Amino acid sequence: MYTVGVLGGGQLGRMLGEAASRLNIRLVVLDEGDSPAKQILAHDAHIDGSFQDASKIAELASKVDAMTIEIEHVNVNALDAVPPSVPVHPSPRTIRIIQDKFLQKRHFREAGCPLGEFIAVDSTVSAIKEAARVLGLPLMLKARTLAYDGRGNYVLRSADDTAIQTAISALGGCPLYAEKWVPFVSEIAVMVVRSRDGEVCAYPAVETVHKKNICHLVFAPLRNFAFNATSTSEIAVKAQKVAADAVSHLWGAGVFGVELFLLPDGDVLINEVAPRPHNSGHYTIEACYTSQYENHLRAVLGLPLGTTELKVGAAAMVNLLGFNDSMKPIEHLVGMSLSVPGATTHLYGKSTCRKGRKMGHITVVGPHDAAVRERVSVILRAMEKIEAEVLGAVTPQILAPKTRSHPHPLVGVIMGSDSDLAVMRDAAHILDRFKVPYELTIVSAHRTPDRLTNYARSAVSRGLRVIISGAGGAAHLSGMVAAMTPLPVIGVPVKGSRLDGVDSLYSMVQMPRGVPVATVAINNSTNAGLLAVRILSTGILQLGVDMETYMRDMERQVMEKVGRLEEIGWDAYIA
Amino acid sequence: MYTVGVLGGGQLGRMLGEAASRLNIRLVVLDEGDSPAKQILAHDAHIDGSFQDASKIAELASKVDAMTIEIEHVNVNALDAVPPSVPVHPSPRTIRIIQDKFLQKRHFREAGCPLGEFIAVDSTVSAIKEAARVLGLPLMLKARTLAYDGRGNYVLRSADDTAIQTAISALGGCPLYAEKWVPFVSEIAVMVVRSRDGEVCAYPAVETVHKKNICHLVFAPLRNFAFNATSTSEIAVKAQKVAADAVSHLWGAGVFGVELFLLPDGDVLINEVAPRPHNSGHYTIEACYTSQYENHLRAVLGLPLGTTELKVGAAAMVNLLGFNDSMKPIEHLVGMSLSVPGATTHLYGKSTCRKGRKMGHITVVGPHDAAVRERVSVILRAMEKIEAEVLGAVTPQILAPKTRSHPHPLVGVIMGSDSDLAVMRDAAHILDRFKVPYELTIVSAHRTPDRLTNYARSAVSRGLRVIISGAGGAAHLSGMVAAMTPLPVIGVPVKGSRLDGVDSLYSMVQMPRGVPVATVAINNSTNAGLLAVRILSTGILQLGVDMETYMRDMERQVMEKVGRLEEIGWDAYIA
Repeated sequence: MYTVGVLGGGQLGRMLGEAASRLNIRLVVLDEGDSPAKQILAHDAHIDGSFQDASKIAELASKVDAMTIEIEHVNVNALDAVPPSVPVHPSPRTIRIIQDKFLQKRHFREAGCPLGEFIAVDSTVSAIKEAARVLGLPLMLKARTLAYDGRGNYVLRSADDTAIQTAISALGGCPLYAEKWVPFVSEIAVMVVRSRDGEVCAYPAVETVHKKNICHLVFAPLRNFAFNATSTSEIAVKAQKVAADAVSHLWGAGVFGVELFLLPDGDVLINEVAPRPHNSGHYTIEACYTSQYENHLRAVLGLPLGTTELKVGAAAMVNLLGFNDSMKPIEHLVGMSLSVPGATTHLYGKSTCRKGRKMGHITVVGPHDAAVRERVSVILRAMEKIEAEVLGAVTPQILAPKTRSHPHPLVGVIMGSDSDLAVMRDAAHILDRFKVPYELTIVSAHRTPDRLTNYARSAVSRGLRVIISGAGGAAHLSGMVAAMTPLPVIGVPVKGSRLDGVDSLYSMVQMPRGVPVATVAINNSTNAGLLAVRILSTGILQLGVDMETYMRDMERQVMEKVGRLEEIGWDAYIA
Repeated sequence: MYTVGVLGGGQLGRMLGEAASRLNIRLVVLDEGDSPAKQILAHDAHIDGSFQDASKIAELASKVDAMTIEIEHVNVNALDAVPPSVPVHPSPRTIRIIQDKFLQKRHFREAGCPLGEFIAVDSTVSAIKEAARVLGLPLMLKARTLAYDGRGNYVLRSADDTAIQTAISALGGCPLYAEKWVPFVSEIAVMVVRSRDGEVCAYPAVETVHKKNICHLVFAPLRNFAFNATSTSEIAVKAQKVAADAVSHLWGAGVFGVELFLLPDGDVLINEVAPRPHNSGHYTIEACYTSQYENHLRAVLGLPLGTTELKVGAAAMVNLLGFNDSMKPIEHLVGMSLSVPGATTHLYGKSTCRKGRKMGHITVVGPHDAAVRERVSVILRAMEKIEAEVLGAVTPQILAPKTRSHPHPLVGVIMGSDSDLAVMRDAAHILDRFKVPYELTIVSAHRTPDRLTNYARSAVSRGLRVIISGAGGAAHLSGMVAAMTPLPVIGVPVKGSRLDGVDSLYSMVQMPRGVPVATVAINNSTNAGLLAVRILSTGILQLGVDMETYMRDMERQVMEKVGRLEEIGWDAYIA
């Protein structure tokens, strides 16, 4: 049985404790009072004190086989003094660099990691004015140390003396540095686990949504629901690579949370790195094969790393932040979340609430994006309602405008021309009937070839899983789409005014070896819809059950006709 | 914040504690010493004592909002005396009936639940001889009370006096009853959660494999890999129904483990019911949206029940039972399990090991049966090796005989005749290349119509997700299979000696509205294999990534030809 010492006993330590108990690893926590982690780890070895206190850190070291942190604002000199018989992970060297955001950025810049521009500044009007001249406005001023959840950040919008003075006072006179404003389109996070011998392994890239600089929502996997040619699967792979590379330039083992900015051109820049489990990785408990917490312990102890992949189709995490000093709104949300399918609620056992305090989180998992986003929106709407009641805030409309196409479709129904619509709408009706989210649009291979390319190339990253395409004559749409996406493509040959649809059928079905099109009967887009449902049922089991019901209904309808034929005779029947 | 009292602090209490901590529910445990549950619930309210001790139970009741059990061998009279202000779930009435297996069976028989025959017997030679005459041999003799994990069970194989005397001594003279031998083909278990107002909700039916009467393995969902017409999806639904119905005849809230026998004719009989979380439900922690432990707490507290569905494709659970008094073999298995993809190891914190003691368990989840069974077999082989070393046992060969078809296929490749094999093997080669488990066989629509029905009707329950079928001429195979399964069916029109394959193509593609066949080009079974991979990739994300690689490879091959054409010129190229 291993014993691991942890500096810090907050919610991250508590979730670390859950993973430790499962593997019968004993965690000894150094923190003050009845912290969240101590509540769920029953033994009398915990140390009551500060993770800044060198003597307490030495005491902890004397009790354990290995040491780690769940917060980076610890006494690193005391960690340096821990005897080599007790390995400290991540290395104190890593923690020291990360504690000072300027040193952290400089380290990653020297290692060749992609970063925005930044410079160190003194807390003087002249120094900051010079920084604003070099990096432009708005300018991001940040405290180098002890800054988290947006504390210690200041956006300077004007370079006049009063504005700069206000900024210096707001930042409390601590050592600063300045960052050039990054016009990001969204924020991405990647958890990376690093073994003792330096092997790095990235979790999926996720989208993080911040509200007043505090993590509000996380969505996994990364999606780009806007229809364009930049593939988010490529962005996700790039973000994982950048994150893993950054972590490989640090020292010691454990999980690391890497926050990134996604730029309009599809590039990613590192924002900052946390040397410990991270809010953006909470979702891994329910959604991945091995959680960030278990992998952190495995890494720290030199055990084999667990699989970092998603085990569900999609996941979302929403933080439960205090609205005010009352527990009531949190309790209300928790009660409500119990009725949300696929939701798991985590409470951190904090005895008092205050505005913005992280009281818990809710993770929602499901078979696909649309299901998860629909489920999480129930919680978000309840939150907005409370916010409006508690804070009198005007809440923005977060839902997509009501259109015919679903904002998070699983099936794309496309056709070469609006003249195919009368045939293709039957597929849409089938998808409606099975409650499958889909979009429907026109993509002409011959008249909008660029649109065809964009559509096919972005399909995976927008979360589509099947494409139904209908076209007539020299029907190239289905085959060309199939050539530019790994998704299954169903072709509906649409009958034109000549050749009775055989031209379309041959154009679709006779694809060369290597690129299949699942062709259905001429004009039979009903069957295309049904085939899409059957295909999706290989991953979403409920659809298979629904398809069996549909087939029994068809059988029943014919049997009713059998009965009627028997009852009234065939002459009357045909009349 | 709720406080729940739990009688018993073993591993079930420990896992209940994990779920409770997440929801910030305080569990107070009554058990002796540093039991597994107390280790992970840090507070000083736990009670050190026996869950048989009336005064300790009264003390527990004075401290909590509600009470429950994690073992049924508790003092029920003391639970009856708990004041009504502290609800006890499940009801003491339920616990009392379940404690006595004879009363339990009689209760379920009176409620009309399906059960094997049984009668009460005195512990005398004459009474048992009479029971053997009525119920036949072999006869199952069981202790009515305090029996679990096979203890208190005795198989009487001869009705002579000596044999019966031996049985009576072996069972220690406790009150008995006799069960008619049930010739079951396998054992099934269903967890059922029952809310305070009597709503019942079943988890998936699972297969349980026992070894010396102790649960050894659990597989979810229920499968029948033998190819026959009895559909396990029907059996699974039936088992869920029988289990839920049995639980609806009990009183009080909580989860219940229902063990069932599957008979050769597809019927199920109830074996016994446990009024608490159950070994056969451990898999729900990693594999279902809401674990049995969380749902037990929700039910006991009158909170909304969570979703009981699987969130992964398949799961297996293997118990870590002590091999002897040494911890070493268990530690070895745990170390090894850390390298098994999708495995989560649970250790119960027991400080000493002995033969057969439940020290922990490992749950393995994955996208489909073949992946999970392959992963779990690594653990099973290691166990068998230890067993052979520790016990000198000869271990049976558990792997399926090596054949060309995979024992747990995801894709069925079928053809109307062996003459189609030369065309159809290309599909098999593609599936090999993408490492997709499949089977390949001949099913003739016109010459083996019964086989066609059996094949199609059993496909879902055998775990198949896609069927590829090839046929020529009046090619009915694909359409008829599609009519009898909800799975996606891919058709390969095979070219015969006349009509150039157009006969087969039209026979396949021109299906009526309602039943689609995904038709590919004539003789192009390569594309059928690729389409199957694309279809599976909607549920198994890795296959989508592999398909992108395949498509890039094709592109590269053509680009090499472009280069060579450029290099040597077209005349040389064509020569």
